[in-house]
Amino acid sequence: MRQVAIVGTGLTKFGKHEKNIVQILADASLAALRDSKTEREKFDGVFVANFASGEFEGKTGIANALTSDMALEPAFASRIDNTSGSGGAALYLGWMSVASGQSDMVLVAGGEKMTSVPTDVATDVIASLTHEEEYKQGVSLLSFAGLMARHYLERYDAPREVLAKVAVKNHENASLNPNAQFQKIITVEQALASPIIADPLRLYDFCPITDGAAAVVMVPAERARSFTERPVLISGMGGATDTHVVSEREDLTVLNAVRRASEKAYAASGRTPNDIQVAELHDMFTLMEIAQSEDLGFFRKGEGWKAVEAGITRRDGRLPINTSGGLKAKGHPIGATGVAQVAEITSQLQGRCGARQVDASVGLTCNVAGFGNNAVVSILERMA
Amino acid sequence: MRQVAIVGTGLTKFGKHEKNIVQILADASLAALRDSKTEREKFDGVFVANFASGEFEGKTGIANALTSDMALEPAFASRIDNTSGSGGAALYLGWMSVASGQSDMVLVAGGEKMTSVPTDVATDVIASLTHEEEYKQGVSLLSFAGLMARHYLERYDAPREVLAKVAVKNHENASLNPNAQFQKIITVEQALASPIIADPLRLYDFCPITDGAAAVVMVPAERARSFTERPVLISGMGGATDTHVVSEREDLTVLNAVRRASEKAYAASGRTPNDIQVAELHDMFTLMEIAQSEDLGFFRKGEGWKAVEAGITRRDGRLPINTSGGLKAKGHPIGATGVAQVAEITSQLQGRCGARQVDASVGLTCNVAGFGNNAVVSILERMA
Repeated sequence: MRQVAIVGTGLTKFGKHEKNIVQILADASLAALRDSKTEREKFDGVFVANFASGEFEGKTGIANALTSDMALEPAFASRIDNTSGSGGAALYLGWMSVASGQSDMVLVAGGEKMTSVPTDVATDVIASLTHEEEYKQGVSLLSFAGLMARHYLERYDAPREVLAKVAVKNHENASLNPNAQFQKIITVEQALASPIIADPLRLYDFCPITDGAAAVVMVPAERARSFTERPVLISGMGGATDTHVVSEREDLTVLNAVRRASEKAYAASGRTPNDIQVAELHDMFTLMEIAQSEDLGFFRKGEGWKAVEAGITRRDGRLPINTSGGLKAKGHPIGATGVAQVAEITSQLQGRCGARQVDASVGLTCNVAGFGNNAVVSILERMA
Repeated sequence: MRQVAIVGTGLTKFGKHEKNIVQILADASLAALRDSKTEREKFDGVFVANFASGEFEGKTGIANALTSDMALEPAFASRIDNTSGSGGAALYLGWMSVASGQSDMVLVAGGEKMTSVPTDVATDVIASLTHEEEYKQGVSLLSFAGLMARHYLERYDAPREVLAKVAVKNHENASLNPNAQFQKIITVEQALASPIIADPLRLYDFCPITDGAAAVVMVPAERARSFTERPVLISGMGGATDTHVVSEREDLTVLNAVRRASEKAYAASGRTPNDIQVAELHDMFTLMEIAQSEDLGFFRKGEGWKAVEAGITRRDGRLPINTSGGLKAKGHPIGATGVAQVAEITSQLQGRCGARQVDASVGLTCNVAGFGNNAVVSILERMA
């Protein structure tokens, strides 16, 4: 199995776009090809992460459309849908494609155009990823989030304010990220005063609806330096699932998919949680960042909130989390998110993050699908 | 890179199902697990091929649902959508997963539930995979098929009747396949008298709308004999694309994606077209079977129709094509098709096809997406 490196990244601004899904995927892809100086290279794999272009825009076949619009034929192309974890799954499969020797140059592009439908329609499309029996009862990801947050706060005796502090931190980071959807700083008081969505969670605990795309170019590590002076090694990846039916989980505060995916990724890379110096986690709601920071092994279960209180996950802390602004403030164009997470860590390891730059040579991303029942974890390292 | 073998297959009947997409995927998957005696094994990858569960049934997240319903957690799971080539893409990625050492036991399940929407809605969802500019003009796959067929017949001086003969052959094969949608034998006269759909093509030139699912279990080849006495080696696979915009193709009768995908598959397996003894091709309309038989290298361009006339592609011919009945008569549940093709060839190589059994130890499948602009080719061999 070959080692795989990222040699370029590209993003659109996250927010509202007039362009369609294929066009925003092309914008991010073109940026990634330019960044990696691979515009004239022959690609042999195109992995397009997208959750619901059919439901949101009535468009299918978008992997073929993107490949053709980018003139990347005859590369193999496919769309990868793993709901909110589509980006992670596409990266994982692109990585396997290079690692197995099937491909020497791979584009992974993730994107979603969500503002083309009214918010209630978008929310219903998203809710359709829950288990059928749950969906029939009117349960949505938002209501599950409320249940999980209440359970966590009570069990681990965590203050409600700590969730607001995650949102405040991520907005502050986003204010330094030109591609982020929300550029404004918020306060704990504002977050706590925002409308209730699913008690105890309020509007500022949730990620928004977003259009946007992100892309990366992967090559065998031994070829990486011919494209960039700052390649980033994907030293380990892992994907795993947990029960789809939320009520079947032994413990609502534990994300088994995240635990198992990260165990695989750590084993593949030879790294441990202690080696991670910067991370992008899947904060579709504020508590998710805390729960993942525990299930990834950064902090003990029930103590992730204390790390937020102590400022450990701030940019100037020991382990900065979501320097991009996270899903909360950078935005969450569903298919783009996993790819954008890897793009952010890549840029951090390359020292290209400007005002939000942190000091790190090993980073991690955690992309989650469903209601936490599917996760893909990547470990990235500055190449020696 | 490790060699990969198939140790079990499973199918539902193709036709109309009352069950939903996850349930028919589970039926095929359970059959594949039973066939491979892997019900108690730990799976580490679940690849679910499906084109449009959201559009057809308002259901998303089906890879997670299937994995959980089958109790295959914590296996990595993702849905793979490559339109009509979804099955081929899922197999290709599952194969890479085992070949790269990421997985030791993989389930690839493909399915589609299409009869849940009226035929005109299904046709529109399918048409949305064409290029946006084509779609705006009202072009559908059916009208492209008519253009391609007319072009081929005129250029290569082929008789209209030869297309009917493909349909007749495939219906006859399907009549011996208990899982096929159409069990009835048809005549050339009936095919030629069926209603015109896109001149010169008529109703009996096209595959139907179908519900159904198919599944296979893959393991590293060195472990295959611990599960079955008749493992089938996947000795080569390849995927490739052609221009998405049909008018940009140099020659409307040539499927460049098929040519390039098969070149990769032949190179990987060390086989040539002359080694292939049985094949399942993607006859979404009758001419497609002929065009692919040429672009795969079985016959020279413009001469595939002569092979049909000569009976070479019949069950008793030198190179039987679509012993299952093909998309035409077995049916075409979009996400299932690529997996069902591989299941058919596997069963042929295992000698389990009953009345439609042919004598073969090396076979090929060609799964096509879009309007021929994306293809995945697999070469399968009886393990020595």
